Amino acid sequence: MSYRVLDCESVTEHLRKIPSIKEFFEDDELTAEEIGDGNLNFVYIVRGVKEPSKSLIVKQAVPYLRCAGEEFPLSKERMKYEIRALQSYDIHAPKIYHADEEMSLVVMEHLKDHMILRKGLIEKREYKNFADHISSFLAHTLFKTSSLYLQSDKKRALIDRFNSNTELCKLTEDFVFTFPYMENETNFIEPMCQNEAKELFADNLFKKRVMELKYIFMTRSDALLHGDLHTGSIMVNDEETYVIDPEFAFVGPFGFDIGALFANLLSAYISHRYRSGDELYREWLLSLITEIWSGFEEKFLQLWSETEQSALVTKGFLDDNMLKHFKREFMLNILRQSAGFAGCKMARRVFGIAGVEEIRGIDDPKKRKAAMMQALRTGRSLVMEYEKITAAKDLLLIAKESE
Amino acid sequence: MSYRVLDCESVTEHLRKIPSIKEFFEDDELTAEEIGDGNLNFVYIVRGVKEPSKSLIVKQAVPYLRCAGEEFPLSKERMKYEIRALQSYDIHAPKIYHADEEMSLVVMEHLKDHMILRKGLIEKREYKNFADHISSFLAHTLFKTSSLYLQSDKKRALIDRFNSNTELCKLTEDFVFTFPYMENETNFIEPMCQNEAKELFADNLFKKRVMELKYIFMTRSDALLHGDLHTGSIMVNDEETYVIDPEFAFVGPFGFDIGALFANLLSAYISHRYRSGDELYREWLLSLITEIWSGFEEKFLQLWSETEQSALVTKGFLDDNMLKHFKREFMLNILRQSAGFAGCKMARRVFGIAGVEEIRGIDDPKKRKAAMMQALRTGRSLVMEYEKITAAKDLLLIAKESE
Repeated sequence: MSYRVLDCESVTEHLRKIPSIKEFFEDDELTAEEIGDGNLNFVYIVRGVKEPSKSLIVKQAVPYLRCAGEEFPLSKERMKYEIRALQSYDIHAPKIYHADEEMSLVVMEHLKDHMILRKGLIEKREYKNFADHISSFLAHTLFKTSSLYLQSDKKRALIDRFNSNTELCKLTEDFVFTFPYMENETNFIEPMCQNEAKELFADNLFKKRVMELKYIFMTRSDALLHGDLHTGSIMVNDEETYVIDPEFAFVGPFGFDIGALFANLLSAYISHRYRSGDELYREWLLSLITEIWSGFEEKFLQLWSETEQSALVTKGFLDDNMLKHFKREFMLNILRQSAGFAGCKMARRVFGIAGVEEIRGIDDPKKRKAAMMQALRTGRSLVMEYEKITAAKDLLLIAKESE
Repeated sequence: MSYRVLDCESVTEHLRKIPSIKEFFEDDELTAEEIGDGNLNFVYIVRGVKEPSKSLIVKQAVPYLRCAGEEFPLSKERMKYEIRALQSYDIHAPKIYHADEEMSLVVMEHLKDHMILRKGLIEKREYKNFADHISSFLAHTLFKTSSLYLQSDKKRALIDRFNSNTELCKLTEDFVFTFPYMENETNFIEPMCQNEAKELFADNLFKKRVMELKYIFMTRSDALLHGDLHTGSIMVNDEETYVIDPEFAFVGPFGFDIGALFANLLSAYISHRYRSGDELYREWLLSLITEIWSGFEEKFLQLWSETEQSALVTKGFLDDNMLKHFKREFMLNILRQSAGFAGCKMARRVFGIAGVEEIRGIDDPKKRKAAMMQALRTGRSLVMEYEKITAAKDLLLIAKESE
């Protein structure tokens, strides 16, 4: 069906005709409510009229930034990549009931009893299964879309499906790796931080390393990335974890999603020095990083050990001992790269267009500035030191030394 | 036009209808002669009947390896990538008169007064302009198809055009990075070399590093590569240099083409120890490597200095001093990677399916074996040491230490 923008009325008419949706609602009439929490897209909750406890989420992309209006064009093609990524996830992602690339539309499981992780961490909630779940998601998604698992033709076909997500990759190139470190009209610099911003913008040694990481981001095709895996792209409760919103998906460097996640956990850690002052909670946040890494490494290596033949590995090419050695170095490189990207992801939040609520939302200006500067120090250290890291706990040391 | 295989008769009928060809031959009648020097494709010289000095080369791919017959299928799609690569070259490539992806057909300038470089080097010819020409070709082609020159959208569009050259990339993965270092039925191991082959196949430290380079080959998208830039893919005379046969073209790591070229010059250098024993000529061959590198580096950096804005570089992001530092490290990384790939390209020729004429063609078995072992030592050293290289002359030292 050719593209048209839906609204609360037309969305129910549209869905009524789709067999998988009809089946879900058991032929009940539908009602839709727009919810305002999508920055980029229109998002509706669609419910059954007789049985309103039955509900689904509908997302439709429009050819502009929903939160900014039609004068901020952004190709609705982004939904194509979100759909393709969601369809490729086999764990910890919402169930997809219907997807239509032409309509830039996806209908998925309604996560009613879950909270955006960022919000949960601001509220000092602990999620005992989160590290296990998210490390499974990362290990499965990254391994099974890499040349360690796929054959060459399948890997190239995967690249084909995501290569043209140009516009959103460009947003990352600009807003993670470039603009937040130089004079740019998109930055958000509070008057009290003008000097610190100038200092950062003059820090050429740091910026040179950011540019190296930007180059890695642009030219490595290790695996299918979510592309924007911050704590606002994860929904959780005590039992379950869901990864959502992969519109930035593309085939990129292994460490980028892991780094994004680490950066956001470190932001939460820093914010609670100034928000709650709860040191036990802060330690729990830090422990997530080592737990996620060790879970990721273990599961990734487990999947690798089950794979004898792939684009990279030919059965019998290396003896067991050397293959083990190869894998150890391979994992260490992913960890280092993750730390480097984590550094960029933290530093860009300080003066860049997109801040994080846990820090920019601190009311007291002095505390807010202190948190921002601590985030900047941590991010900078990660960028400067990432190649020397030898274990996940080194990230914790860097975070503590930057207090 | 839908695909059909042409022969000496139908090729002239086919070309007669194409305006650019008619114009070239000024409406003369055409006659075609098949020449047997294509391994993969059918190649014809087409001449004017009245003016036989006017001639063009016609290449058509068939869905199998021409030299091996129909039982060795190879997708004719390869011609698509050869056409696209030839069309993207702006210097040191034959002029294209007609190209038809559907017909897997290309019509190009007939290089009548030129010799395949490999043959020229076996015959001990010197080409005084070659280093200058080929370094220009490499600098222009690699720089202008990289993220240092292109904007992100153009770079992604370029990747799109070559990403599906799966079959030929897979040939490189197998026949450069895998099979020549393990027991495999495709290898060519003379009885006198059985022990040395066994030794190589058991050299797990070397093979681990080959696997690292294979991973780089598979997952870096720096620039558009020729993909098979050995001395058989270059035609020369005293005045001119032409790069031909880019059917392996894809967007890959910067160092792969440079490495292929270095490997073949080193092979020629080694072969003349046993062929001519001419030390002066051997020194000239080695000097090509440093000359090509310094020419490449200078021209690449010159193009970079003319480019203020690209996917990677944003004007004003780094100060001049730090940008210079960034560029220096960037070039050193290309040199190192080139040396590593050169090592693989040399080592794979020793026991792999595809040998080089200058070494496998040495008649005396003792000398041939000595040359092979020297090539293997040189290749192995390059693979083991490439990350420590600091200048192009280090490759010469490695070559001499492996005598």
